[in-house]
Amino acid sequence: MKELIEKIKQKNSVVLVGLDPFIDSFPKHIIKGDDKAEIAESILEFNKQIIDSVYDIIPAVKPQAAFYEQFGWQGVRALEETVRYAKQKGLYVILDGKRNDISSTAAGYAKAFLSDYGMDADCLTVNGYLGTDGIKPFTDTGRDIFVLAKTSNPSSGELQDRLLDSGETVYEAMAKLCDKWGVAGASEADGASEADGFSEAAVYHNVGIVVGATYPEQIARLRALVPKVFFLIPGYGAQGGKAEDIAAAFDSDGLGALVNSSRGILYAWKKTGGNGEDFAEVARAEAIKMRDDINDYRNSKIC
Amino acid sequence: MKELIEKIKQKNSVVLVGLDPFIDSFPKHIIKGDDKAEIAESILEFNKQIIDSVYDIIPAVKPQAAFYEQFGWQGVRALEETVRYAKQKGLYVILDGKRNDISSTAAGYAKAFLSDYGMDADCLTVNGYLGTDGIKPFTDTGRDIFVLAKTSNPSSGELQDRLLDSGETVYEAMAKLCDKWGVAGASEADGASEADGFSEAAVYHNVGIVVGATYPEQIARLRALVPKVFFLIPGYGAQGGKAEDIAAAFDSDGLGALVNSSRGILYAWKKTGGNGEDFAEVARAEAIKMRDDINDYRNSKIC
Repeated sequence: MKELIEKIKQKNSVVLVGLDPFIDSFPKHIIKGDDKAEIAESILEFNKQIIDSVYDIIPAVKPQAAFYEQFGWQGVRALEETVRYAKQKGLYVILDGKRNDISSTAAGYAKAFLSDYGMDADCLTVNGYLGTDGIKPFTDTGRDIFVLAKTSNPSSGELQDRLLDSGETVYEAMAKLCDKWGVAGASEADGASEADGFSEAAVYHNVGIVVGATYPEQIARLRALVPKVFFLIPGYGAQGGKAEDIAAAFDSDGLGALVNSSRGILYAWKKTGGNGEDFAEVARAEAIKMRDDINDYRNSKIC
Repeated sequence: MKELIEKIKQKNSVVLVGLDPFIDSFPKHIIKGDDKAEIAESILEFNKQIIDSVYDIIPAVKPQAAFYEQFGWQGVRALEETVRYAKQKGLYVILDGKRNDISSTAAGYAKAFLSDYGMDADCLTVNGYLGTDGIKPFTDTGRDIFVLAKTSNPSSGELQDRLLDSGETVYEAMAKLCDKWGVAGASEADGASEADGFSEAAVYHNVGIVVGATYPEQIARLRALVPKVFFLIPGYGAQGGKAEDIAAAFDSDGLGALVNSSRGILYAWKKTGGNGEDFAEVARAEAIKMRDDINDYRNSKIC
């Protein structure tokens, strides 16, 4: 997570903008037509304007694969071009695909998303249900992954909150597995160390976890349980998570978590009463507000 | 699973051919070039010849998304065309994407894979770690899904075999969740009932589970635990699973499971010593052999 952490420090922001294109929420002037190729073009144009407007104040973006895949290969092409554009603008790109498989199949996904032959993202979200066999092909790339631990949705507890006979929950067991996977894979690939000027608390390895902003108690438990594991926190804003809910995620350097907002930023223009000509500027203002709201809590943690 | 079961009965086969293109295992005459578009064209040509050769003796095919996605949008286009071609030939198509997400995002994947706007597959593999929120958008389509329960890989037990405080394992808890999800979603959508001429044992609902052929004991436990849940069994052949290992999956109608083989069938030509001009015929012979090997065990179960 070294590159991510550098960008967080440089921008003084942990805001992760989720690039989730909802065509129905696009301003009319962006829509180029209604066949798949035209929709895909509209998505790319929308994303470029959002990226242009926020790239200097945020460390990272997170395109969600489903929103592109629903428009077929044309949508996937727009996803590829979005990733390329975001990287050109110096952003760390997390491909939110929640992929999971084993051996050569997982290696196929790694090639698709975490190699310069493929989309060339910096990071991929992964579902860890398959165990080590489903993780190693991704960490072998030397890039970062975030594995689902405690997700933000209401029914996440049906499996994730179940108690194991060891007394820990399934999501805690998953977080501990991630900590093990990360330690093994991080040293050469990531290179973060105390010698690089990070305090001990900030040496995060290359396997992070996803923990929902909607579960503040679990955020605190997990921060204590796995102090070297970086958090990707969805569920802020539209899903109900607030800045105070995620305060426990940060370490004494104000690091340790990236906080995602998608709809709350991208479609903030809809609350202005305008026609959306200014959607990108409105998104920027919203990203600044979110940055500042969260930084109040981050700064309070810094020793 | 009604349509799948009809095709199984019609072909008297539970062989599921996994369409996993390994370019390095293709016969030379199939390869059209080495850029992504040419590779994608080669994959489609390979798949069409395989499908032409086996469609009358198997009920279903299972393209694995990663093997296509690694070649970018060109690969995804070949995947779309593969699904279309297989359906034209009357095959039931299981898109092996192991997708997982919630609400509008999961609905995006459902639109991508399980709608006629998208790839129009009959069935999708899904990872159930997120709970009901991650399942309902898929079952709402009225099509089938298979959810990972006990996967075929060596490390699957790291999470899946953990004991819960209830005394059951994580994979058993997942199977029971699937049984619950299926009961809720199946009645209208699937329509299978005893009145249709299925015996009671064969009334499977629309949420199946994935159970590896490499874990015969777990297959037997799960068949007893969730008798209305259809099994997708990977791990046969190349991964070491044999016909006797999966015998317990079948009910007294010889139904209850579909058994996947990918490499073992697609690349059987490599064991012939030939140049692969006859790869499709060799694949057919291998699929027939697998069908017969498994049918010996299925028939022994039929009352």
